[in-house]
Amino acid sequence: MQHSVTDRVTPAIDYDDVLGAQRRLEGVAHRTPVLHSACADEKAQARLHFKAEHLQRIGAFKFRGGYNALDRFDDAQKRAGVVAFSSGNHAQAIALSARLKGMRAVIVMPEDAPEIKIAATRGYGAEVVLYDRYTQDREALGRALAEREGLTVVPPFNHPHVMAGQGTAANELFDETGELDLLLVPLGGGGLLSGCATVARARYPNCRVVGVEPAAGNDAQQSLARGAIVAIDTPRTIADGAQTQALGELTFSVIRQRVDAIVTVSDAQLVDAMTFMASRMKQYVEPTGCLGVAAAFANADAWQGLRVGVIVSGGNVDPLRFASLIAPA
Amino acid sequence: MQHSVTDRVTPAIDYDDVLGAQRRLEGVAHRTPVLHSACADEKAQARLHFKAEHLQRIGAFKFRGGYNALDRFDDAQKRAGVVAFSSGNHAQAIALSARLKGMRAVIVMPEDAPEIKIAATRGYGAEVVLYDRYTQDREALGRALAEREGLTVVPPFNHPHVMAGQGTAANELFDETGELDLLLVPLGGGGLLSGCATVARARYPNCRVVGVEPAAGNDAQQSLARGAIVAIDTPRTIADGAQTQALGELTFSVIRQRVDAIVTVSDAQLVDAMTFMASRMKQYVEPTGCLGVAAAFANADAWQGLRVGVIVSGGNVDPLRFASLIAPA
Repeated sequence: MQHSVTDRVTPAIDYDDVLGAQRRLEGVAHRTPVLHSACADEKAQARLHFKAEHLQRIGAFKFRGGYNALDRFDDAQKRAGVVAFSSGNHAQAIALSARLKGMRAVIVMPEDAPEIKIAATRGYGAEVVLYDRYTQDREALGRALAEREGLTVVPPFNHPHVMAGQGTAANELFDETGELDLLLVPLGGGGLLSGCATVARARYPNCRVVGVEPAAGNDAQQSLARGAIVAIDTPRTIADGAQTQALGELTFSVIRQRVDAIVTVSDAQLVDAMTFMASRMKQYVEPTGCLGVAAAFANADAWQGLRVGVIVSGGNVDPLRFASLIAPA
Repeated sequence: MQHSVTDRVTPAIDYDDVLGAQRRLEGVAHRTPVLHSACADEKAQARLHFKAEHLQRIGAFKFRGGYNALDRFDDAQKRAGVVAFSSGNHAQAIALSARLKGMRAVIVMPEDAPEIKIAATRGYGAEVVLYDRYTQDREALGRALAEREGLTVVPPFNHPHVMAGQGTAANELFDETGELDLLLVPLGGGGLLSGCATVARARYPNCRVVGVEPAAGNDAQQSLARGAIVAIDTPRTIADGAQTQALGELTFSVIRQRVDAIVTVSDAQLVDAMTFMASRMKQYVEPTGCLGVAAAFANADAWQGLRVGVIVSGGNVDPLRFASLIAPA
């Protein structure tokens, strides 16, 4: 385990940045619905408001931040295009956003990424550059490519425009629910959590903001406790969208000042939440997307009677994998 | 194969009956959303409007008809209560409706019904009477019970108040979409199809109404061709909500006059549609609920460019069964 000391710095974004993103996403991102379930309320002993980002374009909240970042490019950047490193939802977010903006997009993906994900990214019109994850450094590869061809790198979470874009999910949730007592947000690199916490602090200062990460990789929990970013080995968890090794400097600058607590859930609790979402709410949600849901169910005693917002962050899970998770052989 | 000749009779319901049901369901049934998917439109080469009845109370459209029927009981009937024979969605529809009306409900279920369904029905406050499906006649049992205790029988489809209630699904769909070229409706006993066809004929006479049944049990297709109800052996299909042996006299009286055609889909096409609904639209739909969706995908050439309404009828499938269907061992 390594850690680095981070000075207490000004948070990387403020609520105005989120409001700007909200304007840019108007008519482009889906204003996803807020779902309710009497059955879920009973299980959590609270009133749950689920912000359904698995119904967002590309099937995850990542579209918000990706599009907002591209929309803020200057003219030269727009002409040259964008590069991103990702085999997950961020890749598709950038690919689709670039297509909508009429921009070139290059996505750097490991050559052993699932064929279906490579095809989906190409399907959005992006160029896919494959690398060998055992012998090549994708960051170095991507940055060389960016420099040579004048492309702008958009990182998956540690960027103010990405963070501000993700915050619009909470902003829309509050528009619909009004004040809440608690907001539960899935947490990997902290882009979504930092954006959402910024909104909560500005709109409802008394709303507690809690990030939820997999028990197998509680680097953010450790980082908050230590007051500095703690990096860990890639955690082994079914929540593949939260297999990050560390928060970013920018996301941490927001999280340490605006987030009240980080809690963790086990993979078994994630499977239970996925099964619940499917069988009772008829919603198909990926493991990472269930982090907040699982936390609500796991902490029913502590949060009894509260008005709780839950960001359901995505639904991109292969059907065969979904089946193997809810019905292990 | 048996068949009986049916005279051309006055249809059992008219649009006014559906409008009455719509008033009675106001604020009680969910006004389920109409979902869209660019990806589905591409696959079907048409513009699809999915009426999401898997998000209805009890997870299926059956609540509409069940509640409407109970709401039309006279005072003596309300005091005595209701009896229904079902191990599926109709059981839960009647159980929940009775609880909402403060009425007694008795549900006659086979003793080998899944424990989870028996528990769910009891969970809604209904009394469950179990019978041996190999040695006992459930109709006789139920009717004896009804007579002895003054209960009113509400059948799952062959009843005008049930049929009128189910039609409200199409009525709400048209409220949102306006005129459509084609309406696709899952078909078992014909309650949903007869109600929806009645609405389409009244509101948009040029909208073609097509019922969709499993290829393994095309009794309705045969019945329309013959002009009389054809009964078949219980079909072997994964669409358990459409394993009916024959239309009812009342549903047939409407279907023969207001439905344009019946098409069939295979179990493999249902699995493909379920997988699509999950992976692309993030919706968890039972096999029977996918009948209309599968038909839209299977007939892309014939229905190219049309405005198509698709009733997605329910989402009550056990997670283990769902997993085994989309990922066969």
